[in-house]
Amino acid sequence: MGEFDLIARYFTRPARRAVVGVGDDCALWQPQAGMQLAVSSDMLVEGRHFLSTVSPQRLGHKALAVNLSDLAACGARPLAFTLALSLPRIDETWLQGFSKGLLTLADLHQCELIGGDTTQGPLNMCITVFGEVPPGDALMRSGAQPGDDIYVSGQVGDARLALEVFRGHLKLDAQHFEAARLRMEQPVPRVSLGLALRGIANACIDISDGLIGDLGHILKASGVGAVVTTDWVADSAAISPAMQSLGMSKRLDMALAGGDDYELLFTAAPDQAQSVQEAANDCDVTVTCIGRITAGQGVQVMDPHGAPISRRFISFDHFSN
Amino acid sequence: MGEFDLIARYFTRPARRAVVGVGDDCALWQPQAGMQLAVSSDMLVEGRHFLSTVSPQRLGHKALAVNLSDLAACGARPLAFTLALSLPRIDETWLQGFSKGLLTLADLHQCELIGGDTTQGPLNMCITVFGEVPPGDALMRSGAQPGDDIYVSGQVGDARLALEVFRGHLKLDAQHFEAARLRMEQPVPRVSLGLALRGIANACIDISDGLIGDLGHILKASGVGAVVTTDWVADSAAISPAMQSLGMSKRLDMALAGGDDYELLFTAAPDQAQSVQEAANDCDVTVTCIGRITAGQGVQVMDPHGAPISRRFISFDHFSN
Repeated sequence: MGEFDLIARYFTRPARRAVVGVGDDCALWQPQAGMQLAVSSDMLVEGRHFLSTVSPQRLGHKALAVNLSDLAACGARPLAFTLALSLPRIDETWLQGFSKGLLTLADLHQCELIGGDTTQGPLNMCITVFGEVPPGDALMRSGAQPGDDIYVSGQVGDARLALEVFRGHLKLDAQHFEAARLRMEQPVPRVSLGLALRGIANACIDISDGLIGDLGHILKASGVGAVVTTDWVADSAAISPAMQSLGMSKRLDMALAGGDDYELLFTAAPDQAQSVQEAANDCDVTVTCIGRITAGQGVQVMDPHGAPISRRFISFDHFSN
Repeated sequence: MGEFDLIARYFTRPARRAVVGVGDDCALWQPQAGMQLAVSSDMLVEGRHFLSTVSPQRLGHKALAVNLSDLAACGARPLAFTLALSLPRIDETWLQGFSKGLLTLADLHQCELIGGDTTQGPLNMCITVFGEVPPGDALMRSGAQPGDDIYVSGQVGDARLALEVFRGHLKLDAQHFEAARLRMEQPVPRVSLGLALRGIANACIDISDGLIGDLGHILKASGVGAVVTTDWVADSAAISPAMQSLGMSKRLDMALAGGDDYELLFTAAPDQAQSVQEAANDCDVTVTCIGRITAGQGVQVMDPHGAPISRRFISFDHFSN
């Protein structure tokens, strides 16, 4: 099987909303009048973004999920994506699983594969995703206001927890490990929550490098500071049973600096608290208030007794971790 | 220097036409009302698309050029692109050269870098480029008509010729080698010609895998056949001095099956011949008529005496070459 058969067999489906989909020099697309386009690109590399032990189906899911998570963080509705794939060899079992995981998630969000590229080389996948958002409605990192509550969606820490078990640094019983591993290998992008938070949240980001580090991007872009509590790490909907099996110190590391969570971290004015909870209920996801935006600079993390914690929570950096 | 400093230093410039450029979860873009978007994505891998001997500046140019060439083949005007980059390590000299080559070409075409991704891993660069085209004006592979003349822009064969010299399969004198090497390492995307051919050409593709193979994509999409002459390989504006230093048999291989040319291969009705030449003159590029579309199937290559050539010209396949 050559390059063109590969594309035809695994990645070509009839164009739906696209004017021209896979198979010409470019895909053609008619944007909806008046809407803004949101564009994001993520590249996944073995050993950095996934382990060789991951199933191809989960990997296909994750490759698109991390991109959809960027759209979610902007409150943009997914429309389409391109896939560029470098493969060491043509392995049909792998391609079948990968394309199934990828296209199942794409269908769930009506996000159409419109083009891309395949080549031989070290395993690498690059997805560029397009969404739409009405002008002025996009959730940005730069909108946080002093006094805003800070929220996190879903649960944090599990992906890093699973990674540390794979690395042999931590142990978990089989049931907790499988649950944490699923979070690492098959994250759920919070697309509907991102859409529901338009007009409610003042600032939003998705957690890819670690909660405190990613919060830092909001603070920097907004010119504000933050106080983050930790009582919610002790006991809240944001902490999974697997995380609860850890001692508090490890749990803080995973929750605040773990990375790879793909949950939404967002801020909203206190008078939006009920709207935030209603949006979350409508989307079947929990949201947990974890702190407050201040007029200062940087992040102050507080222990459950309200005393500052001096240790630092270093965010994931692809060139140093 | 970490991931975020790298992005800030080498790849972040103030947003121009983008509403939001590099630095949030997504870039935001307001498409011009009524225009269609053209989207293309190409991934470049060391050893497949470039050699380790290429200068980072030329590589930065080429990474964008091959994508702009896809827009050119559709007659789309470049607007913006995203860059995803996997690097073995942070090498500032390399980054400086790469970003210079990349952004110089981007500026030349007013094509704005609006976002992307950086990570550590085997060297890999993936660019997704966006252009615009009025609905119905895009040049497609599927529009070729029996009786159309077939044209190629610029010169073909030099890139593969340089590659064969690097591989030790051919020898060239220093001056010819440098010229051919420049064509391989720093191809010129025919953006203005693609725009000028709107309403004139019936079908268009850019030559990346080899002239005959890429012509095959037009034939298949259009449901037609073609006769390709070779007198132009003996002597025409499409054959460089470096190519002319080869014997005819090697020259045919390079010109018809070389690949990596990034010239436009297009068809136009005979009564458009003058318009084709005027468009080419306006764009300061030569175009050479190399054959004719037929009502049949497949490609028949003719020798300069008008007799069929039976040998096959196999196109480049990333999984077999």
